[in-house]
Amino acid sequence: MNETLNLSMIVIGDEILNGRTTDLNGSWLSKYLFEKGLSLKAIRFVRDNKTEICSALSASLQESDIVLTSGGIGPTIDDKTKNTLADYFGQKIIQRDDVAQIVTQNYLQFGRSWQPTLNHYHFFPEHFEATNNPKGLAPGITFWDSTNEKLILAAPGVPKEFTAMVDQEFLPLIKKHFNHLIKENYQTVIRTSGIPEEKIFFDLCPTLWSELEKFGKVSSLPHVIGIDIVISYTGTKSDHLEKEEKINSLIKESALSSYVWQYGNLSISDLVFKKALELKCTFSFAESCSGGLTSSKITDISGSSEIFMGSVVSYSNQAKMDFLNVKLESLKEFGAVSSQVATEMASGAREKFKTDFAISLTGIAGPTGATPEKPLGLVYIGYASKDKSGAKSFQFPGDRTKRKDRFSDMGLLMLLNLMEDKI
Amino acid sequence: MNETLNLSMIVIGDEILNGRTTDLNGSWLSKYLFEKGLSLKAIRFVRDNKTEICSALSASLQESDIVLTSGGIGPTIDDKTKNTLADYFGQKIIQRDDVAQIVTQNYLQFGRSWQPTLNHYHFFPEHFEATNNPKGLAPGITFWDSTNEKLILAAPGVPKEFTAMVDQEFLPLIKKHFNHLIKENYQTVIRTSGIPEEKIFFDLCPTLWSELEKFGKVSSLPHVIGIDIVISYTGTKSDHLEKEEKINSLIKESALSSYVWQYGNLSISDLVFKKALELKCTFSFAESCSGGLTSSKITDISGSSEIFMGSVVSYSNQAKMDFLNVKLESLKEFGAVSSQVATEMASGAREKFKTDFAISLTGIAGPTGATPEKPLGLVYIGYASKDKSGAKSFQFPGDRTKRKDRFSDMGLLMLLNLMEDKI
Repeated sequence: MNETLNLSMIVIGDEILNGRTTDLNGSWLSKYLFEKGLSLKAIRFVRDNKTEICSALSASLQESDIVLTSGGIGPTIDDKTKNTLADYFGQKIIQRDDVAQIVTQNYLQFGRSWQPTLNHYHFFPEHFEATNNPKGLAPGITFWDSTNEKLILAAPGVPKEFTAMVDQEFLPLIKKHFNHLIKENYQTVIRTSGIPEEKIFFDLCPTLWSELEKFGKVSSLPHVIGIDIVISYTGTKSDHLEKEEKINSLIKESALSSYVWQYGNLSISDLVFKKALELKCTFSFAESCSGGLTSSKITDISGSSEIFMGSVVSYSNQAKMDFLNVKLESLKEFGAVSSQVATEMASGAREKFKTDFAISLTGIAGPTGATPEKPLGLVYIGYASKDKSGAKSFQFPGDRTKRKDRFSDMGLLMLLNLMEDKI
Repeated sequence: MNETLNLSMIVIGDEILNGRTTDLNGSWLSKYLFEKGLSLKAIRFVRDNKTEICSALSASLQESDIVLTSGGIGPTIDDKTKNTLADYFGQKIIQRDDVAQIVTQNYLQFGRSWQPTLNHYHFFPEHFEATNNPKGLAPGITFWDSTNEKLILAAPGVPKEFTAMVDQEFLPLIKKHFNHLIKENYQTVIRTSGIPEEKIFFDLCPTLWSELEKFGKVSSLPHVIGIDIVISYTGTKSDHLEKEEKINSLIKESALSSYVWQYGNLSISDLVFKKALELKCTFSFAESCSGGLTSSKITDISGSSEIFMGSVVSYSNQAKMDFLNVKLESLKEFGAVSSQVATEMASGAREKFKTDFAISLTGIAGPTGATPEKPLGLVYIGYASKDKSGAKSFQFPGDRTKRKDRFSDMGLLMLLNLMEDKI
């Protein structure tokens, strides 16, 4: 056993490699393991094919102490994980009463009853252990290979089942076998907007990268509306707090500071939510080009009904007038995508929803609708508070959905600035 | 060289394995290659670490004819792909004028100028070829290993750059070297709702799976509001059309048919869009628990402004009354989550947006807000057309965001049924 505890993941399923389903478990597990202080060495995506699963297993076992698989343990015939694992470790599959009991429990939690005739869940490798499935029916499959000190864990591919099983069933097993090897990982994150990656490190702050490297591993990551700078290291919580403070001061004193919108790791919607709770204020939106996405991001947050009163997705001009009191003359004179209309939309939303603040978005999401004066990706973001109203324009690259994402994040950033009286 | 052309992908980046960034290129490439008739053998996620990249390279080259990497070719110091590939194939990195020219072109498309002092893009492995980057600055890296007949392709990790480079630069290279081996893949897809996976194959149609297997490989895939049945096979276009027709007839004659909402592969939002264009009708939404997501899904579609007039995200009760004419008495007597209020919301939206159809959603997205009578995941979906209005209730599992996803897809399915006069 090495000093570093490595985990490898295998995602199993034809539907993922042929593009029919998007795997969500890999990215969830990455984040989860990082937070738990475990290190994810690699992920392999393979098809529902015995030979390919075996070869991924063998490579994973060679490099890692723990191998975790996702998918292929359901009741249908294309589910091959259980048999493949049994064969790989040279175990017979037998009918097991203890597994039948776990399966019965899994069914009971949904008020359903299980019988052995229903499926083959109770046929199980002789020396493996089954686990409960807190959110589904198929039992988890686990095996502690004591000779080689390797832990094998197989969960269902359905994301809600996968995540619950990893958290509630697998993590305790990992801790049982490897607790002494778990280290704490930390990150200091600085989120910027309005300046390209290259400009930061080659132009604005040419020595910043090497200064940051003294604290840990540096990464520069493009995000929806800007660049995140991430410094990763292991250590104690108090080491982390000390490093974080030093890194943040370094940035605050640099030319980059005016581009930073957060010293921290929250999403812009979470930050807006937190700020609005703090200020005990309310807000609303008027969305045209972002088509409801800004509202959807805020309403993803539990408790958002306390601060978010609603929005109008005013896709037609008629709706802009009827719901938001936008003037016909403004639409005629300036067009729907204009500073004037954005401002009227924001003021209208603020008034009609009776909120402290309002943000509006009107722009060209594309791919059609652009003109020489109003190019693809142009957006006017309007704002309104008790004291002021107005609009700013931006232009974003991307395709239609990417632009909607950028528009809405920038709208939320404007809302944050508005609440903080920085506009 | 085998008869089947295999491609392996390597996704490179610490930020993906520590969960900071979600990889989008893997799922995009899976779908893309499938459509182009290429077969994706495996995906490996590795860290920005030379040894780990090399070991993934070696495993990929062993199993596949083409190896495609994503990430690690930017200008910063954590970008290790170019050097690692050069070392792996025993090539020196030299300053190259031809590469400098490509980089200059990449900058020019954004109206920017490039100089050799700006970065090291023009330092390049001696026998590799650089490609244009249609959506970014870093050149693509390619190498044809003629001895072993292997093609190596390295693209940037930023999704818009990755996808454009694969499509515009790499696919022509793949065709050049391997055209005679490319086969056509097809799928027949049947999308159902309202019946669990097990029930279909163990209860309702116990022989269906084996009957479908005569046509190709069968998969059963849980989706947002139901189960998709997918039959995959290779062949000619006319084989495919013939198989599809036979499979669809088989299902139409089975007990499953009443649960099928589509013989085909469109998303529910695309299907709604298509139907509305066909009928030349318009629609609007009143969204409470789905918080704008239904609108956002429809507005992801270019051209949706022709048929979608807008929506009100009425998160507060006040907004339900002010914008949608919901009666105070209905809110008091039945509560916001009720058949009565859902119906009034839909009628209000239809009237105010002056559309042919309207759908409303009001429910408990959770995790808080549930009561014994109104449990988590309960949703009332209201509908209104010229002739009728009403509401139906559903209950969905999941967490808050998953439930929003299910609510909104079910709302769209109700809209489809409403347009087709099936409610």
